[in-house]
Amino acid sequence: MLEETAAWRQPVQETLDQYLATVNNPHLEAAMAYSVDAGGKRLRPLLLLAVVTTFSGDGQQALPAAAALELLHTYSLIHDDLPAMDNDDLRRGKKTSHKQFDEATAILAGDALQSAAFDLLAQTSVAPETLVRLVQLFARAVGPNGMVGGQVMDMDAQGHQIDLATLQQLQAEKTGALLAVAADMGAVLAQASADDAAQVHAFASAFGRAFQIQDDINDVTETAAQLGKTPNKDVAEGKATYPSLVGLTGARKALGDEVAKAKHAASQLSVPAPQLLALLDYFETEKQ
Amino acid sequence: MLEETAAWRQPVQETLDQYLATVNNPHLEAAMAYSVDAGGKRLRPLLLLAVVTTFSGDGQQALPAAAALELLHTYSLIHDDLPAMDNDDLRRGKKTSHKQFDEATAILAGDALQSAAFDLLAQTSVAPETLVRLVQLFARAVGPNGMVGGQVMDMDAQGHQIDLATLQQLQAEKTGALLAVAADMGAVLAQASADDAAQVHAFASAFGRAFQIQDDINDVTETAAQLGKTPNKDVAEGKATYPSLVGLTGARKALGDEVAKAKHAASQLSVPAPQLLALLDYFETEKQ
Repeated sequence: MLEETAAWRQPVQETLDQYLATVNNPHLEAAMAYSVDAGGKRLRPLLLLAVVTTFSGDGQQALPAAAALELLHTYSLIHDDLPAMDNDDLRRGKKTSHKQFDEATAILAGDALQSAAFDLLAQTSVAPETLVRLVQLFARAVGPNGMVGGQVMDMDAQGHQIDLATLQQLQAEKTGALLAVAADMGAVLAQASADDAAQVHAFASAFGRAFQIQDDINDVTETAAQLGKTPNKDVAEGKATYPSLVGLTGARKALGDEVAKAKHAASQLSVPAPQLLALLDYFETEKQ
Repeated sequence: MLEETAAWRQPVQETLDQYLATVNNPHLEAAMAYSVDAGGKRLRPLLLLAVVTTFSGDGQQALPAAAALELLHTYSLIHDDLPAMDNDDLRRGKKTSHKQFDEATAILAGDALQSAAFDLLAQTSVAPETLVRLVQLFARAVGPNGMVGGQVMDMDAQGHQIDLATLQQLQAEKTGALLAVAADMGAVLAQASADDAAQVHAFASAFGRAFQIQDDINDVTETAAQLGKTPNKDVAEGKATYPSLVGLTGARKALGDEVAKAKHAASQLSVPAPQLLALLDYFETEKQ
């Protein structure tokens, strides 16, 4: 990853730390911080900031919005891991929230992180019109017709045969919506033109699809140590994935196709976008 | 309750229905609607609308903000009832969400309702400066230093002796924050003066305290049919309540005191406030 892009990790962390330090209840603060600091790659904040800086926007000013994405993402992981959901004991090599604390704490830490995401986003120092647009985009992306809707589709699909189109829709909502809105919010913050905004949306949508395919591939090819969680879990649970529906070779081809689409979208922008292209280093397309 | 105030229930319901009809996933929509339509009194929306109309604001325009309060409140009830939390099978005389559906659905319906609250709030047709202020107030009130923080305090207090001051702080966050912000948002929407805004905040804070004391009293004095849930649950779980800390007579006196404080605050407004005073009919102070 470009040093310029990765360099934003530290300011994002500081923004997260500053927010969490404002939480009065020590038990709640500890549970929120435990999961926020559990080693995430901060891809969503970095994507937002890469878009902002691509269009010469103010990355510093965008930090609360960028960090809000991470708070929201963290809530979704905590709730996904709950016993009633995916029932995972490990996440990124650390105990999941309900294992480290207890189930009630994990539910409430997740709930608090969702509110916190909106709270932090609403503190972004931009024109009110801009902030309203950010809140509208964000709420739409994470809500019933976005991330949560995808999670429900995922739950309903378990134990059922689903086709590739259904898997794609599920993944587009569950994982794609938050990545796409990171780019959309970056475009709003940097006041990108409508054409540029459409291309970064296309970039982020392809990035999101590639991200989920990579995740599906990792589940069958990586060890527990590499994954930081139980491998082959999708297969064991009869969960549809790219490899289960199109095979490992087919999944790697699909991954390559999505990365190519993302590159193409980036090439259509009115400005060079090394920050965005650098994010594609995440994908292991060289394995093909 | 004043007919004028109660008459807002129908437009609030329509706003909720219209929002829920936009949810694409039928399973998620059914779970969200089940709890939203489980017979709530819509006190929070009615409080916001009573404040708006007290200051001759536009109630119709305020409906998305008012309904957002109910979506948020409903999410908090669904999650409170979960097995890992209060483990309630009944709520308002109907099966709780995790009993009617399953635990995963209840978690996700709650999550979706929280996002939905922000989504609907962000659709309020007011000046961007006003909307930003509403989102800021709302996010703060429902987040880690508001409602969720109170819920964590409540959980931590279980099985421990707590004093009245701790119980009051817990209830102020868990129940009071959302009622107080309903009034604050109403004052913002109606562009009330700073003095009037402070008095409606005082009114709603007293209302919130009275509401929680009434709830504690009902738990020990009402039957399951009246409560719509298991009675004496607080006592059985060794949960601190007003009656357990100051006795039933003390609790009824405290209730009367809070209602009197609310009336006093309403009397200090620059305009008559029959809509606000009518909300106090909710409390059974005649039993004292």
